[in-house]
Amino acid sequence: MTFGELVYPFSKDNHIESFNIGFNNFKINYSGSMAKGLPKRSEDFSAWYNELVKKADLAENSAVRGCMVVKPYGFAIWEKMQQTLDKMFKDTGHSNAYFPLFIPKSYLSKEADHVEGFAKECAVVTHYRLKNAEDGSGVVVDPDAKLEEELIVRPTSETVIWSTYKNWIQSYRDLPLLVNQWANVVRWEMRTRIFLRTAEFLWQEGHTAHATKAEAIQETEQMMEVYATFAEQFMGVPVVRGLKTESERFAGAEETYCIEALMQDGKALQAGTSHFLGQNFAKAFDVTFSNQNNELEHVWGTSWGVSTRLMGALIMSHSDDEGLVLPPKLAPIQVVIVPIYKGDDQLAAISEKANALKDALQAKGISVKFDDRDTVRPGFKFADWEMKGVPVRVTMGHRDLEQGLVEIARRDTKEKSSYKVEVMEEVITNLLDEIQENIYKKASDFRADNITEVNSYEEFKEVLETKGGFISAHWDGTAETEELIKEETKATIRCIPLDAKDEEGVCIKTGKPSTKRVLFAKAY
Amino acid sequence: MTFGELVYPFSKDNHIESFNIGFNNFKINYSGSMAKGLPKRSEDFSAWYNELVKKADLAENSAVRGCMVVKPYGFAIWEKMQQTLDKMFKDTGHSNAYFPLFIPKSYLSKEADHVEGFAKECAVVTHYRLKNAEDGSGVVVDPDAKLEEELIVRPTSETVIWSTYKNWIQSYRDLPLLVNQWANVVRWEMRTRIFLRTAEFLWQEGHTAHATKAEAIQETEQMMEVYATFAEQFMGVPVVRGLKTESERFAGAEETYCIEALMQDGKALQAGTSHFLGQNFAKAFDVTFSNQNNELEHVWGTSWGVSTRLMGALIMSHSDDEGLVLPPKLAPIQVVIVPIYKGDDQLAAISEKANALKDALQAKGISVKFDDRDTVRPGFKFADWEMKGVPVRVTMGHRDLEQGLVEIARRDTKEKSSYKVEVMEEVITNLLDEIQENIYKKASDFRADNITEVNSYEEFKEVLETKGGFISAHWDGTAETEELIKEETKATIRCIPLDAKDEEGVCIKTGKPSTKRVLFAKAY
Repeated sequence: MTFGELVYPFSKDNHIESFNIGFNNFKINYSGSMAKGLPKRSEDFSAWYNELVKKADLAENSAVRGCMVVKPYGFAIWEKMQQTLDKMFKDTGHSNAYFPLFIPKSYLSKEADHVEGFAKECAVVTHYRLKNAEDGSGVVVDPDAKLEEELIVRPTSETVIWSTYKNWIQSYRDLPLLVNQWANVVRWEMRTRIFLRTAEFLWQEGHTAHATKAEAIQETEQMMEVYATFAEQFMGVPVVRGLKTESERFAGAEETYCIEALMQDGKALQAGTSHFLGQNFAKAFDVTFSNQNNELEHVWGTSWGVSTRLMGALIMSHSDDEGLVLPPKLAPIQVVIVPIYKGDDQLAAISEKANALKDALQAKGISVKFDDRDTVRPGFKFADWEMKGVPVRVTMGHRDLEQGLVEIARRDTKEKSSYKVEVMEEVITNLLDEIQENIYKKASDFRADNITEVNSYEEFKEVLETKGGFISAHWDGTAETEELIKEETKATIRCIPLDAKDEEGVCIKTGKPSTKRVLFAKAY
Repeated sequence: MTFGELVYPFSKDNHIESFNIGFNNFKINYSGSMAKGLPKRSEDFSAWYNELVKKADLAENSAVRGCMVVKPYGFAIWEKMQQTLDKMFKDTGHSNAYFPLFIPKSYLSKEADHVEGFAKECAVVTHYRLKNAEDGSGVVVDPDAKLEEELIVRPTSETVIWSTYKNWIQSYRDLPLLVNQWANVVRWEMRTRIFLRTAEFLWQEGHTAHATKAEAIQETEQMMEVYATFAEQFMGVPVVRGLKTESERFAGAEETYCIEALMQDGKALQAGTSHFLGQNFAKAFDVTFSNQNNELEHVWGTSWGVSTRLMGALIMSHSDDEGLVLPPKLAPIQVVIVPIYKGDDQLAAISEKANALKDALQAKGISVKFDDRDTVRPGFKFADWEMKGVPVRVTMGHRDLEQGLVEIARRDTKEKSSYKVEVMEEVITNLLDEIQENIYKKASDFRADNITEVNSYEEFKEVLETKGGFISAHWDGTAETEELIKEETKATIRCIPLDAKDEEGVCIKTGKPSTKRVLFAKAY
């Protein structure tokens, strides 16, 4: 079998400035040249990420400062994440609901830590009407339409939801209340980065109410575990389950559980958080219930969320210098079939086989694209689907087919092999599982290589500068030391791992006694 | 078979003030007494609607003026609508994407009619930070954090999307661009009503770009037809397909297609609109493409949307004085099984049969709730599930089961019959189809009875006052006459039906010649 005539993976002269792909239901536009490729991860991780987000057609910056446009291909990945998580939430007894976008300013203030945490970065609606400018220069804010009380565009919905729960909860029979919301939220971040930190982002926020502290803590832990399971089994991203230190806790929480992932550049990324709120919001909004002994008590609360930030984690965990690498479980297109042919007769013969394979795989729930575009060359298609991270590519060449063969290439390892047509359905089905596993294994191996135990501050700083990754070290448990280390090194305590063993030691910074190691890292 | 001992449908003394239902994944709270029932539709339609929305646990007003909270049971219905529509959009070649919540004020102004239409009711973000008040009274807007340009919370997204499309479209190969967005939007309505007219609402907005006028019109018509199909086949609501008059058109459109439904009180409700935008937004945002002859042309556009308003249409089309009536295709719970028993042994025996039926129906994709609560009486459960509109109720009584019988009741007609246990699965499956059809037929018959042709203004006014409904009449085609009739009668032209026949006539108001009848009605 020879593909010697193919320009693969890419030819410098194959330089198309703008084209258009229709696949499944997507109509995606490609502006700019694929031929330029991506910056190398090893040389400039940040530029690599930005270019990849653009070239894989995932998202772009909008005209509104810090707000992104999620493009159809990027949104299709997010939809897969959403659907998977939504099912997991429902399987654990939660229902979806919808609460207002706007929060009265006074509500935000009712929980002291909460307002402290969010006041500095919130979009404020002050007026409800525009009018024509008197000088004819366009529309201006109508000063007569000033709101009596300003409204905050929700940065998170604890306050508006707990003010609602007050009316929903009277008795222990109303508990637990297990609600989730899929929504957009706004935090006026000064430095933004697509998916990782944007002024507006999409997320889900669970808000639950319970009769006992123990039950609320159990819920908090359960949802952290749901997130961890999703990250590991669907995204293929291994995570550390842990607790945040007091200074990294959610504003208004008694305890914040988190899952922390490690990116390929050695920086950590907080991928999801689950908060035990104690009775803080119940007290702030006076949410009480009568228990089985008919005594009034304040309710116990939790909240938990993941966001479009997960898209950033997904991209930075697996992708390479040729583009996106997607785990099959979250890939909008799992298999692409590319025909190699000359003339309509050859295409017709290949199409028959390609469509039969497509039908057979789709019947198994596998999403398949037959890329029969005649406006671009096969080498271009190869590079294009590599950039978009499609896990499996099937190449159907006229000459190979005459010998009863097809070529199957996997995106993760870039391995290619020829198979008999009769077995390709089975090979592909198995390969998708194998790729899902391999992606996770590769990320797990990388993480294992990048958790370093250190026992002195010198060692800490050296590892941080030369290698990065998670650094496991003793800490004296004070916010002062945490802050000092952060100021001096930019490393933060990502979490106190839940599986940390008791171990006598001394704080790397102060030498004070410590009983557990925590994980430090520079983080997104 | 006797259910003589049951309190059915309702007992005045069965008066529980607050309770809680767990069904499938819902945890729904019930405050207030079911025993109070609903106001009668015939006496006060408006009060009936408000109470039904509340008692069926669909939604409630929030603390933020005009914004609603969609409760879990209401949201579950909306999710079914969403999923169905989303599939229809994808089947017609559209992809989802996400665009920013905020629109720079200057963007809104770029299309003259558009800003005219929306400036009077938009929420304006002017600041991006709060700070602690100097007098310690809480947080205030930080005057130092004033935005250079105010941001509008999107009332609809044409402007921000067309400003993005400018970069996505260069060539005819980039077209058509078929994108949809599920989002929240804000229009600062002065008089609001849950689901029908709220300051914030949930909707989808399709925004497409085409190379030719003909193709854009075809898309506009196709999406109107998608909406009509959804309304009729899923919601069970017959609709008139038509064109809006110029004065009722979307701000910025060349033509607005709509589907108009008739509510049980004889008022019309616009259930969906599909706009042919011509080249208006393409010109406003300079979106051009090079055609196959390499000439630059402006793109042709469409936009189309339906919203949580459909929830209002669904409720007001079918429900009755006992509560919600849901078409099976949109019911979160299609079948509820209520056991009638004394003691745990009887319950155990019934549970076995109930769970077997539940499993069998769920295997067919039918959603079933076995209501084995022991805290409320069967009569209460009956009324509760009637209020929530569950299409089919199966009553499994101990004594009946001994004779191999169950009772099956349908929500739409309130008919009850006994069946042998062996056939219940088949009976229920067929019954769901029958209910779906019957609900649509009933609404169609009602509408047929409430479209009245009139040929004079006197007749017009009389029908409007005594009977309501759609009034089919000749109109001279001018905005002046339309406005005059509206001022004098509060009736508006709902649409020019697409299937209106050519017919010589004279305008009911001015006596001027007319060639087609249009549909008038008072409307929501």
